[in-house]
Amino acid sequence: MVETLQIRTTKQGLCEFTPQLHNIVRRANVIEGLCTVFVRHTSASLTIQENADPSARRDLETWLNRLVPENDRLYTHTAEGPDDMPSHIKAILTSTSLSIPIVNGSLSLGTWQGVYLWEHRRDPHNREIIVHCA
Amino acid sequence: MVETLQIRTTKQGLCEFTPQLHNIVRRANVIEGLCTVFVRHTSASLTIQENADPSARRDLETWLNRLVPENDRLYTHTAEGPDDMPSHIKAILTSTSLSIPIVNGSLSLGTWQGVYLWEHRRDPHNREIIVHCA
Amino acid sequence: MVETLQIRTTKQGLCEFTPQLHNIVRRANVIEGLCTVFVRHTSASLTIQENADPSARRDLETWLNRLVPENDRLYTHTAEGPDDMPSHIKAILTSTSLSIPIVNGSLSLGTWQGVYLWEHRRDPHNREIIVHCA
Repeated sequence: MVETLQIRTTKQGLCEFTPQLHNIVRRANVIEGLCTVFVRHTSASLTIQENADPSARRDLETWLNRLVPENDRLYTHTAEGPDDMPSHIKAILTSTSLSIPIVNGSLSLGTWQGVYLWEHRRDPHNREIIVHCA
Repeated sequence: MVETLQIRTTKQGLCEFTPQLHNIVRRANVIEGLCTVFVRHTSASLTIQENADPSARRDLETWLNRLVPENDRLYTHTAEGPDDMPSHIKAILTSTSLSIPIVNGSLSLGTWQGVYLWEHRRDPHNREIIVHCA
Repeated sequence: MVETLQIRTTKQGLCEFTPQLHNIVRRANVIEGLCTVFVRHTSASLTIQENADPSARRDLETWLNRLVPENDRLYTHTAEGPDDMPSHIKAILTSTSLSIPIVNGSLSLGTWQGVYLWEHRRDPHNREIIVHCA
């Protein structure tokens, strides 16, 4: 019913975990229900996005980096590095939790939808995602 | 428990489906529970917003169009038209899933809350929303 | 299973209610499950953010106020005061609902995660949050 997914990120950006999520849903053996994904961090977040053309994901990252740049003179929370405060802002603009209905034992994702962990820090991190199926 | 809602959008903008959602909840016959709404697309999204004054929704649309304009020189993902990459960005800034508690057999929406599909493409599209009640 | 949390906000900004949420989860007596939080307003929203250093929350507020300023000439929805339309925009950029898995009878929040009501209006308001545990 609840499983923890550990993801080691290597750099800033979108990191797909749709296959791992499909496996968890299969193991949960829920025919009709709900899968909820929750990330236990405030400098990484979740999003569902286009899984086909990598250029779309690259543009998402570039666009968000331009909207929320490092070294903005507005920031007073700078003790944890120049990429920390932008990470928190990016996290609140995207998602900490996502819920996807399960139909016929599978996630009801659209054809072009992938589920992504968005690492907002520059350095590699161990990230924990809790997956609840019922 | 799970139903699919088909919505034909006619143009870019907010498209309310609160009445259809109320009907699904009524059919689900859940007295106390949770209704989760999930959109199966990456260029349309969901939001809960003010259902009273249309000027508020118009301003939401205008504001988001200004924040995420077409033909931004940053975009490299341009093969699917000038409104495609902005659509993906708008989708990650709003919601792919929403959950609303059910109380006394009804959605516990506030007085001024309506549930909207946000079509981000300019052309009409057939959009699928999965509704899970339990 | 469903409880209503009443919060009296005193001013614009982030207002933590993690302790109240922990109490509701304890009372719900769910060992493994899901806690969903829903705010019944369109000018206040929810977010999960860093609960340690207050400077991070202050920067979040300042940053969002700069992105969505009052008295933007774009706004036509001005009848409810200069802070109303910015409030609706801020609400769609953050969250109306959040879902947090319950593990061993407790919310599976990360060490640095707090759950916040984000009051976007300047004046004090009575806000209602519906909490569903199952």
